Amino acid sequence: MFTDLKALVRSIPDYPKPGIIFRDITSLIEDSAGFSESCERLAAAHRGKDITKVAGIEARGFIFGAGVAIALGVGFVPVRKAGKLPGETIGQNYALEYGVDTIEIHADAVDGDDNVLLIDDLIATGGTAIAAVSLLRRTGAKVEHTGFVIDLPDIGGAEKLRAHGVAVEALMTFEGH
Amino acid sequence: MFTDLKALVRSIPDYPKPGIIFRDITSLIEDSAGFSESCERLAAAHRGKDITKVAGIEARGFIFGAGVAIALGVGFVPVRKAGKLPGETIGQNYALEYGVDTIEIHADAVDGDDNVLLIDDLIATGGTAIAAVSLLRRTGAKVEHTGFVIDLPDIGGAEKLRAHGVAVEALMTFEGH
Repeated sequence: MFTDLKALVRSIPDYPKPGIIFRDITSLIEDSAGFSESCERLAAAHRGKDITKVAGIEARGFIFGAGVAIALGVGFVPVRKAGKLPGETIGQNYALEYGVDTIEIHADAVDGDDNVLLIDDLIATGGTAIAAVSLLRRTGAKVEHTGFVIDLPDIGGAEKLRAHGVAVEALMTFEGH
Repeated sequence: MFTDLKALVRSIPDYPKPGIIFRDITSLIEDSAGFSESCERLAAAHRGKDITKVAGIEARGFIFGAGVAIALGVGFVPVRKAGKLPGETIGQNYALEYGVDTIEIHADAVDGDDNVLLIDDLIATGGTAIAAVSLLRRTGAKVEHTGFVIDLPDIGGAEKLRAHGVAVEALMTFEGH
C-alpha cells in the first residue's frame, strides 16, 4: 500500500478551457493498485466512525464512492443530476459559475438512523459537495464526514465544507486552479 | 452470501413512460449485503479468466463496475457519454429508439495486453453494450466477458451480445419489457 497515487493522476493543461489544468483521475483508476488503494485509503480514514452508507456524486463520485462502500461493507447512495432517479426524490439547487444546477436523491435513500460518508473525486469550490451534504441532512441523516481523492485548497472548497460542520479527508492536493 | 438480490430490486410501473416497468437498482445498492453480494457474485463468475480491467458504462455501470473491479483487484475503465473525457478519445455510435448516441473511452485506456470485463446494471436491447464491446476491441483489447445485474431476456439483448462472441452473465432476469 505505498503506491504514489499522485503520480498516477494525469494533468491536462488548458482543459476544459485555457488556463485551467484538469486533474484526470482516469489514469489513476485504470491502474489496479491506484484504484484499490485510493478506495481503501478513503475507507480506512473512516473505519470506527459507524458509517452506515456511502453517498457518491454523479458521475466520477460513483466510481470512488462505490469502491469505498465495498471496502467499508455498507450500502451506496447515488447523488444524481436532476431527472435521473425513478422514484420519489428530493432536490437541492446550487450555484454554478453561470447559472444553477440541481442534484437529487431518492427521498427514502437515507433516514435519521443513517451516518453518511459523502465521497467525490475532487473538491474545488465545494458547491456540489455542500449541496449534497445539505440534501442528505434534510432526511434526518447525520453527515459529518466527506472524502475526496483530490483537494484544490487554493480554491477553498474544503474550508467552506468544514464551516458546515463536516470533516474533509483528501488523498492529495494540487496547488492552483 | 444468500441474500435474495431480486427481492431488493424495486419495480416502478409506467416509468419512464406508460407500459414500461422500470427495474430500480438503487434499492439494491443501498442495502449493504445487496450491493456487496451483487459485486462479489459478478466478480466470482469471472475469477480465473485473467481479467485485467473492468469497464463500466456511465452512469449506473460505474457503480457496479467499480465494485467488481475492487473485488477482482483490477483497474476500472469508464465508458462515458460523448464529451466527458479530458484526454484523446475514441468513440462509437449506436442507435437509440429515435436517433443516435455516442460513447467514448480514452484511446489509451486499454490495449492489446488487456482482457476486459464489461459491466452494466441492466441489459435490454444490448445496443449500448454491443457498442462498448466494439469500442474496447478497437484498441486491440480482448473482450469476451460481460456481466449485468439484470437481464430482460424478452428484449433479446443478451442473445445479440452472445452473437458478437461475448459471454453474458446476469444475476437475475425479469420477464417483459
